[in-house]
Amino acid sequence: MTLVSEHIEPDTSERILVVAERLFRQIGYQKTTVADIAKELHMSPANVYRFFDSKRAIHQAVARSLMSEVEVAAQEIAGRQGPAAPRLRELLVTIHRMNSERYVGDAKLHEMVAVAMEESWEVCEAHMLLITEIIGSVIAQGLASGEFQAPDLVLAAKCATTAMMRFFHPQMIAQCATKPGPTVEEMTDFVLAGLGSRSAAV
Amino acid sequence: MTLVSEHIEPDTSERILVVAERLFRQIGYQKTTVADIAKELHMSPANVYRFFDSKRAIHQAVARSLMSEVEVAAQEIAGRQGPAAPRLRELLVTIHRMNSERYVGDAKLHEMVAVAMEESWEVCEAHMLLITEIIGSVIAQGLASGEFQAPDLVLAAKCATTAMMRFFHPQMIAQCATKPGPTVEEMTDFVLAGLGSRSAAV
Repeated sequence: MTLVSEHIEPDTSERILVVAERLFRQIGYQKTTVADIAKELHMSPANVYRFFDSKRAIHQAVARSLMSEVEVAAQEIAGRQGPAAPRLRELLVTIHRMNSERYVGDAKLHEMVAVAMEESWEVCEAHMLLITEIIGSVIAQGLASGEFQAPDLVLAAKCATTAMMRFFHPQMIAQCATKPGPTVEEMTDFVLAGLGSRSAAV
Repeated sequence: MTLVSEHIEPDTSERILVVAERLFRQIGYQKTTVADIAKELHMSPANVYRFFDSKRAIHQAVARSLMSEVEVAAQEIAGRQGPAAPRLRELLVTIHRMNSERYVGDAKLHEMVAVAMEESWEVCEAHMLLITEIIGSVIAQGLASGEFQAPDLVLAAKCATTAMMRFFHPQMIAQCATKPGPTVEEMTDFVLAGLGSRSAAV
């Protein structure tokens, strides 16, 4: 029974998250109740509570899952072979594209992001620290190969990530989408120039 | 009479704005009424409406006045003599400091900023375009003197301003104030490096 249960439970919790994410997108985070989620899954609210002890816990898990897709894609790019500059460019543009897809087309998801930033700051912070670390790992490769120049790797990673705020931060992506400003590719070139890359001065 | 009236009216409208700004800070923008402002000034609401046709017009004028103080300080720095790099650094740090003073200590003013960004976007946009232009004018001086390298001045100004979003944007200043990240001086050095300044690589 233990084996079967171990097999079934992750699947059930996964199904809860898929339905929760859909309802958060369709009717908004505030208006979705645990009862709504349970009803869609033809189960009792009590059964949902066996997996997540609150709506906030479901919300955190949905946010974690959206963020970890970006982290996996970022790590895959950072782990590739080849020169650092084009890889850093691809990494920054990919984070922007994935965050835009996740948080911007969807007005209801803004609410979820705002809630995540208020109620689950530690989840957002862990994500941002990991993204900064992944960006730092590509910068480290560029420093090792002589493509980049920067006396302080950790600081360079923080500045490169911060410079991309307009393109990474869900609220800024949404707010700036129709506003004048550089494209993500132009901004990436500026960041590369800031890292002393000779291949890309704006 | 015309002369006297021309002398008095700007003063009255100035007093309305000073009182409005104080009330927006003390009780918030939404809760402040034109009647509250009139009462503080011992005048009738009808008299306030002689100068501003709506609460929104008062709000816009308060926002414009807060922003123009920053613009004047920025223009003063940009207009000075001397090397461009230290001047650009002072300019970026000053914009950050003035925006922080204006919009961050004060929880009630966040509401005013949010309202300005929603209801008076054109006022915010004109401010940002002017700030970008002033930053561009110092970059132009650095390009002329050979301190900076950048093939496209307008793009360089847009990227430098965008890179500072965490330190310029009122909502980002408030949100990031207690979060890990580079200091404004460190970020400024990164921007200078992005402009090809040899005096400041991070």
